[in-house]
Amino acid sequence: MLKLIIGNKAYSSWSMRGWLALKQSGLLFEEIVVPLYDDAWDKRREGAEFAPSSGKVPILWDGEAVVWDSLAIIDYLADKVGRDLFWPADEAARACARSMAAEMHSSFVALRREYGMNVRRSFAAAPVSPAAAADIERIVSLWAEARSRWGSGGPFLFGRFSAADIMFAPVVTRFITYSLPIPRFAAVYGAAVLTHPFVADWLAGAQNEPWVIEKFEQPAPQ
Amino acid sequence: MLKLIIGNKAYSSWSMRGWLALKQSGLLFEEIVVPLYDDAWDKRREGAEFAPSSGKVPILWDGEAVVWDSLAIIDYLADKVGRDLFWPADEAARACARSMAAEMHSSFVALRREYGMNVRRSFAAAPVSPAAAADIERIVSLWAEARSRWGSGGPFLFGRFSAADIMFAPVVTRFITYSLPIPRFAAVYGAAVLTHPFVADWLAGAQNEPWVIEKFEQPAPQ
Repeated sequence: MLKLIIGNKAYSSWSMRGWLALKQSGLLFEEIVVPLYDDAWDKRREGAEFAPSSGKVPILWDGEAVVWDSLAIIDYLADKVGRDLFWPADEAARACARSMAAEMHSSFVALRREYGMNVRRSFAAAPVSPAAAADIERIVSLWAEARSRWGSGGPFLFGRFSAADIMFAPVVTRFITYSLPIPRFAAVYGAAVLTHPFVADWLAGAQNEPWVIEKFEQPAPQ
Repeated sequence: MLKLIIGNKAYSSWSMRGWLALKQSGLLFEEIVVPLYDDAWDKRREGAEFAPSSGKVPILWDGEAVVWDSLAIIDYLADKVGRDLFWPADEAARACARSMAAEMHSSFVALRREYGMNVRRSFAAAPVSPAAAADIERIVSLWAEARSRWGSGGPFLFGRFSAADIMFAPVVTRFITYSLPIPRFAAVYGAAVLTHPFVADWLAGAQNEPWVIEKFEQPAPQ
């Protein structure tokens, strides 16, 4: 059986993407949570199952095959179960979806650094740094483009739930956690993501985790 | 016909990846060089053909479809001409290749920031920062893994020239430009990359470019 190693569901945004990709694939998988910054788990993190990524999560083991990046997990699974479960069938829509997913993969550093994922908390709105504001504006413009051009078949970026939604799901939770300013259409899209069964399942799992990491429990620094 | 917009061949590492992907696809494409940091080209950069990426390169236009990220270009083209031109056929090898390409896409920030690509220059060896040294060590360990497990069919990471080599090609040029310390097997692999016909073609194009950007013409800061 497939084995996915992840960090805390409350805090690990890249784990969330890898896990949602596994759910989307429909394949059965064993889920192993190894909490971040937890000395008691260091031995496991230093073991062979973590070696390919030097200790980072998520890691997917599939027999001899190992995939240690969330975007790579998406396309590894698309190779395995069929591309149409992850990417739009239309070529122009798929070009856009692949570009958006890749931009999420490499970019939005200010937003990610200043607003760590914490799906269990909610903080009052506060001033946003110019760099984070620029990231938010770009993300919202990407969502607007996808929703307006290709979103007519459903509530997600390209209609049906796809890899693009998987890549942006942790951003949706940040927008809620930190009460970040987004337009109404983006809030509606965000609500669709948060109530998708796979996302809701992840969020419920986070509520039940015993671990609390103090440095992720503060409102964003201003 | 496909149209690829790129930056200077001397300096634009992400453009190099997109361009190599187009060459690898075997498809005919029009190449448009829009030099970076050049006021005379600002009007073009503010036009509609740059809009999807907000001005960044590379951008691939294919009729109605537009792809504005180098890793997305690779998989868009793989969708179009067949995955086997870009990724290993073996599932475990492909899992590794996809993970390595994705790690290159999102990581090695210190190496990329401290050692900007400049394929026309060569600087003497100098002390390397701890962060850049860690990046180099990780890259070399990834190359060692791929070459030792899957490289027997040729001189490249997975034997034949693949998307993984495309993603790391600009790093190979940085290792040469800045005389960075790498083990012998990595230098041998690098030589294979630099003499690959597509890479050699790119490097020749860089030699002929008229533009010089002073800030990229200095040895790395220490």
